Amino acid sequence: MKLILVGFGVVGQGFAEILRDKAAELKRSQGFAAAIIGVVTASKGALYRSDGLDLPALLEAAGDGSFALYPDQPGLRRGWGAEDMIAAGEADALVEVSPTNLETAQPALDICKRALDAGMHLVLANKGPVALDYANLQAKARAKGLQMRCEATVMAGTPTMQLADEALAGCEILSARGILNGTTNYILTQMESGMPYESALTQAQELGYAETDPTGDVEGWDAAGKVLILANALFGAALTMDDLDVSGITQISAADIADAQAAGCRYKLIAGATAEGGMVKATRLPLADPLAGVGGSTNAVTLETDLLGDITLIGAGAGKRETGAAILSDLLAIQRAAGLT
Amino acid sequence: MKLILVGFGVVGQGFAEILRDKAAELKRSQGFAAAIIGVVTASKGALYRSDGLDLPALLEAAGDGSFALYPDQPGLRRGWGAEDMIAAGEADALVEVSPTNLETAQPALDICKRALDAGMHLVLANKGPVALDYANLQAKARAKGLQMRCEATVMAGTPTMQLADEALAGCEILSARGILNGTTNYILTQMESGMPYESALTQAQELGYAETDPTGDVEGWDAAGKVLILANALFGAALTMDDLDVSGITQISAADIADAQAAGCRYKLIAGATAEGGMVKATRLPLADPLAGVGGSTNAVTLETDLLGDITLIGAGAGKRETGAAILSDLLAIQRAAGLT
Repeated sequence: MKLILVGFGVVGQGFAEILRDKAAELKRSQGFAAAIIGVVTASKGALYRSDGLDLPALLEAAGDGSFALYPDQPGLRRGWGAEDMIAAGEADALVEVSPTNLETAQPALDICKRALDAGMHLVLANKGPVALDYANLQAKARAKGLQMRCEATVMAGTPTMQLADEALAGCEILSARGILNGTTNYILTQMESGMPYESALTQAQELGYAETDPTGDVEGWDAAGKVLILANALFGAALTMDDLDVSGITQISAADIADAQAAGCRYKLIAGATAEGGMVKATRLPLADPLAGVGGSTNAVTLETDLLGDITLIGAGAGKRETGAAILSDLLAIQRAAGLT
Repeated sequence: MKLILVGFGVVGQGFAEILRDKAAELKRSQGFAAAIIGVVTASKGALYRSDGLDLPALLEAAGDGSFALYPDQPGLRRGWGAEDMIAAGEADALVEVSPTNLETAQPALDICKRALDAGMHLVLANKGPVALDYANLQAKARAKGLQMRCEATVMAGTPTMQLADEALAGCEILSARGILNGTTNYILTQMESGMPYESALTQAQELGYAETDPTGDVEGWDAAGKVLILANALFGAALTMDDLDVSGITQISAADIADAQAAGCRYKLIAGATAEGGMVKATRLPLADPLAGVGGSTNAVTLETDLLGDITLIGAGAGKRETGAAILSDLLAIQRAAGLT
């Protein structure tokens, strides 16, 4: 399977490391072999080679901050844009791992459409295109017999979407409700131990959970984008951001947290949706709720189903290797669906 | 897909009800259509019809206790054994839902082998054959290009095995650890609220969680059989019952429960295994453990993986519809793998 990567930050590098480290095992156990033939970035440059790039050299150059440090090879092209790489028509799938833009989803959205038009499967870790234009992308993919998958956009590699697609194939999923933002869950967990909000936020930033501008996390927008993707991907809702009632954790005081504890409850930033709409809201949960026990930066989601009742999945919500693994998982699903094994 | 059912108790009837109620939706959303052409039971008789049995009539006769009440139809045969139905060679899959025997796995084990020899896929809710002879059955299935699936044997329809098979396909699973017996979890949860052991057991029996002879549940053998199946199915362990150190909840007193609560802990009957061995043991868990929050008859399992860390799945551990749904889920997986959609 020949791949183009758009973006090569933490997630792209995490994925490339897994390919480098597990190539033999993936070939043996899954009959899976992939070559990264193109990588295009905003800050490090771009590389393209039909026969595949050298993964250790690619990772080393990225670590040093520039693809100019990647050694010359026969057939290597430098400086191509995503459009050039798609137009070359050699890739089987395009992997969109560039930074998320929840306002316009650009430039990723146009690149995704172009890749589908060119007959390439699409795998995203970038939430923008699937949060803002899921239905159109999915329709375009289906019309061409292609797959669009985005496991990495929600709960890193914790396999929410594959659980729904395959393992729950016979069930109808009625709603999704979960803890989808690790930063806010970490902050709330620290506040329960008595840490002030500002210190917990600083700590979350130091640990790499929160962005320098944490607004998207603490005001609930990151969780909103994720629950929107889940609703659209898991039960075909046609929701937009306007259908969600979104608030964050900034109104929750130390006194609120203490009150909840005294009442045998715990605050969690809960994102939930049905096909009709959804919300993101700091919510007092009784300790018996499976979501109440999910602490730190861990994420969780409860899917309400017709045949099986509630199914809860708990796992990592972030991480280089964990999110890179989601890309791999989507590519394996594409291979299974195409009967390529 | 033409099916033979061996056994037609709670699980078999739950599955038939789902087929009856969701036929149109399954056809539309999954391209799935199944006919039950044979049902053989120890107590109700046996029915076989190449063109498929009538599901409402079958369920009504079973509800009344005897297939003698099933109306005559052209091509209907009564009184065949499983061997006759397999020898007829018309079924695509055999579904083993007869009662579990964890001592010898018979007569189900011989029937399963015969079905595989005859080229039929195999789906089990009966734990015996897979707990005692997993490796041989799996090898026989693979050698013939067939599938053997047993989602229903552990955590009802909560999709533990499909999660591992497909959604975690790129990961190595290193261990499994969970709450796999609903009866004992229900008893422990009731004891935490102050109910004596004997009353909690009686209540579990009245609710249909526990057998009349509850030894298999409360001494840990049911959980042991399940963790053995998980270890063999999820990470290819070649374990037998002799590799497990098994105890139950009968030594846990009300005072032990109170001590644990005072220490911010909770007793759970934990079944765990690696490729090297395993155990079933009443264990004090800190409340922060995701398994500590799993109350009542709910089940849960935490899978330790190389790429994603710990993934926890929580869901129903029993139930007519929930276990019937596992059979459907396995048949859908067989259809996907065969590229039949």
